[in-house]
Amino acid sequence: MKPSGRWPQARLQSLKRPPASAMDRPTNQGAIMAQDKPARRPRAETPKGFRDYFGAEVTERKQMLDKVAAVYHLYGFDPLETSAVETVEALGKFLPDVDRPNEGVFGWQDEDADWLALRYDLTAPLARVAAQFRNDLPSPYRRYAMGPVWRNEKPGPGRFRQFYQCDADTVGAPSVAADAEICAMLSDALETVGIPRGDYVVKVNNRKVLNGVMEVAGVLDPSDPTRFEAERGIVLRAIDKMDRLGDEGVRALLGAGRRDDSGDFTKGAGLSSEQAEVVMGFTSAKRATGRDTVARLAELVGPSVIGREGVAELETMADLLDRQGYGADRIVLDPGVVRGLGYYTGPVYEAELTFEILDEKGRKRQFGSVAGGGRYDDLVKRFTGQAVPATGVSIGVDRLLAALRAKGRGAVDTAGPVVVTVMDRERMADYMAMVGELRAAGIRAEVYLGNPKNFGNQLKYADKRASPVAVIQGGNEAEAGVVILKDLILGAKIAQNATLEEWKDRPAQIEVPRADLVAAVRRILAQ
Amino acid sequence: MKPSGRWPQARLQSLKRPPASAMDRPTNQGAIMAQDKPARRPRAETPKGFRDYFGAEVTERKQMLDKVAAVYHLYGFDPLETSAVETVEALGKFLPDVDRPNEGVFGWQDEDADWLALRYDLTAPLARVAAQFRNDLPSPYRRYAMGPVWRNEKPGPGRFRQFYQCDADTVGAPSVAADAEICAMLSDALETVGIPRGDYVVKVNNRKVLNGVMEVAGVLDPSDPTRFEAERGIVLRAIDKMDRLGDEGVRALLGAGRRDDSGDFTKGAGLSSEQAEVVMGFTSAKRATGRDTVARLAELVGPSVIGREGVAELETMADLLDRQGYGADRIVLDPGVVRGLGYYTGPVYEAELTFEILDEKGRKRQFGSVAGGGRYDDLVKRFTGQAVPATGVSIGVDRLLAALRAKGRGAVDTAGPVVVTVMDRERMADYMAMVGELRAAGIRAEVYLGNPKNFGNQLKYADKRASPVAVIQGGNEAEAGVVILKDLILGAKIAQNATLEEWKDRPAQIEVPRADLVAAVRRILAQ
Repeated sequence: MKPSGRWPQARLQSLKRPPASAMDRPTNQGAIMAQDKPARRPRAETPKGFRDYFGAEVTERKQMLDKVAAVYHLYGFDPLETSAVETVEALGKFLPDVDRPNEGVFGWQDEDADWLALRYDLTAPLARVAAQFRNDLPSPYRRYAMGPVWRNEKPGPGRFRQFYQCDADTVGAPSVAADAEICAMLSDALETVGIPRGDYVVKVNNRKVLNGVMEVAGVLDPSDPTRFEAERGIVLRAIDKMDRLGDEGVRALLGAGRRDDSGDFTKGAGLSSEQAEVVMGFTSAKRATGRDTVARLAELVGPSVIGREGVAELETMADLLDRQGYGADRIVLDPGVVRGLGYYTGPVYEAELTFEILDEKGRKRQFGSVAGGGRYDDLVKRFTGQAVPATGVSIGVDRLLAALRAKGRGAVDTAGPVVVTVMDRERMADYMAMVGELRAAGIRAEVYLGNPKNFGNQLKYADKRASPVAVIQGGNEAEAGVVILKDLILGAKIAQNATLEEWKDRPAQIEVPRADLVAAVRRILAQ
Repeated sequence: MKPSGRWPQARLQSLKRPPASAMDRPTNQGAIMAQDKPARRPRAETPKGFRDYFGAEVTERKQMLDKVAAVYHLYGFDPLETSAVETVEALGKFLPDVDRPNEGVFGWQDEDADWLALRYDLTAPLARVAAQFRNDLPSPYRRYAMGPVWRNEKPGPGRFRQFYQCDADTVGAPSVAADAEICAMLSDALETVGIPRGDYVVKVNNRKVLNGVMEVAGVLDPSDPTRFEAERGIVLRAIDKMDRLGDEGVRALLGAGRRDDSGDFTKGAGLSSEQAEVVMGFTSAKRATGRDTVARLAELVGPSVIGREGVAELETMADLLDRQGYGADRIVLDPGVVRGLGYYTGPVYEAELTFEILDEKGRKRQFGSVAGGGRYDDLVKRFTGQAVPATGVSIGVDRLLAALRAKGRGAVDTAGPVVVTVMDRERMADYMAMVGELRAAGIRAEVYLGNPKNFGNQLKYADKRASPVAVIQGGNEAEAGVVILKDLILGAKIAQNATLEEWKDRPAQIEVPRADLVAAVRRILAQ
């Protein structure tokens, strides 16, 4: 017995059949639904894994992204805003994180039979745009993009199904000068938003070097590049987890496999201990200087052609960055960084914040990665058949915001509006004239628009809004041509302090002539 | 014969069956697909009805929205960013435009059986948030929101399935002072973004007045409010189309119905000519002054209780606005404005741009509506069962941007970067040092990162980027310690003008010492 006439509440053109499961769900109210007029009210809930952002959260992110955009602009990058929706075939199989096999996209079938989906990152849409508009876009094409992406995965604590990314990419630049430029720009961006030099480091590596090492270890055969592909994928992801699993854990994954604390077993790459040794040598190849690291890597890749190419690229990047003044205090070569994504083909880079924070168990740990990227020369080729060199970085917006908060740099001006209270609802025009004058003077202000009966509620409201000043004018004040200004910042300070000593010369409430309203409010705000 | 192993390219968790139709589509290349390694490449196409925004388009919109946000902030409104995805039950049946029956949402079924959809406006998510967080939010809650919304409808010229809205609403304010405030704020916002006073007018009306007129006309029975509901809907939408259909067309829709030029017949409300006369009297009730309009409306609604309430509200709003200095040059009472949406319950308002533009056929016409809104006291009630008064406005972002362009106010700084060309790829570090210096001086600059072989391509690139200056340093210049600066703005101006007379004293190309690079570029940019 299904209720009729309730579905669809909204016209869902793409639905092919009634969503029985949604209908069968018991109601919140437990009410018995009538056949054609169900009593159940919709639940007021954000969908699972999604969230809303209020006030200062929105402003804080916007201010950070505006600063990042200014750096990108200075470097010659242009904004691009693609649609949130792509065809599934354009998005392709390049889901960015192979470590999360449950990861998917939100997709549906369009009326005309196209399968559509929400973008899961900003790189796939760029590849589509670069192919679609290849005759119109400048080449190289430097673009930045900022906006939400969506992942259809199991939500977890702090892991949402919609989140912001902030990317910059150069398409059509084959030289590693483009990679070096992105690393320098990333460094500038971090400092511009408020991460001081010394609190971050951009680590640079090269996938070709890793491939050279794999060749030496016998898990890459240049004459048959697809052979051992699965093994190399496992090696890549194992190295990427060095931070979390440590030396021993990575070695286990390079070999037979690893059983974690929960008892789950992850199959390994099946390397012999000699092979694993070669790979581990790579991850610990970092030396005191970039020059020494390069020399060590050259030893490790031996005669491998691809490996030597990678070492030469690293050397070029290091030289370019060094000569621009981006020394080891900002950008370093670090073979330990490989990035988990499968599609990188050359340089890879990652920005790590080096200052310590306390984790949820109160232990000190480094803040860690906030941005990463690399060169992917094959993404555009999917569409056009022609290889198009591309490199770019993605900043984890929420991670970087969290870092700024941890450093006390995230704070934005959260001052609420001056609240003009309503003592006499017949005189609303007078109160609105007051806020009008305040606003005309550039002072954020509003009149209380709730039910004015209970004056206490008005002051509670002002408090909730973090209002600095409440303006009060009852009948007597109106007759006398004055207004009362209540200094709410002072009130809050007094409430915080045990002693009033500090504030005794400052009155929490003053009466001023109506004509002096704006000037008097300004004086309080300036204190 | 279906190719295997190709689907799903992306993991579509919500799909219940393989999308056969997508597979059967012929390939672009006409290649014969192998059974397990199909050769077909994905099409690089924006999905139908969607579009991408490039460079200046993104900047232009952002600058306009930043200005609007500043006005909203000044009025005490806080930003809110809800998720793009809502449960279908939360979105509800309030699809905003009843005139477009094909209108729908993009929806899909989540793994846990919830039906999810992309938001179709910013009002429905606000109603959900206002209900969900009613114990935490200040009341009244003034919020603004800016962002894309999605409509699953047939795309048409200039009509996209994803577009921006920019809303401000006050939830929990029963008084029409809140409506008056929104109208004043809308007026301020329009002037702030660049629509001069005199080029726009905010028209105000009240649904209760219309209901009073309907009562007089006999299509509203206060003792049985649902009776004649369908007829009233037709009347509402007919009046809303006065601009397009004219007096006669509206009369036809009030009566038996109307056949349009294409022969399609739209059923009318079935009013008698006497009834229609009453309604038409309402739409033409506007008089020279607000006071006279109010007086005329009071006559028209006669003894109707709801009608008199509406007239009183209009009078209060007019008085409040007048006393704040928002005179008839900015905000006027106009009974011709009803707004098409069904959910409005009191004041409605609309911003119209009054300057003329040429339509696609070269005829002059007024630019028309760019924003509208009104009071909707029942949207939050859906969730909570308790009526929550709310009022708000939505700005049509693309319409307003088009208006600014028409007024020549949309222009943003589209200056491209200074382009440092690459004459000798071995000296890339030198060129990167140049852009580094320029950027450090705040000058947007980049080094050419494409293949440097063909120097002509580098200058073509600079041209495509709207670069103001190209910097050139070959081996000879490097030895001599100089750089050549090519003034590309001047070059473009010379190309535009028949005579060089004007520019003869300004060299299009100068040689300066390397050490003077930044100063010399700055001089050219300042010209």
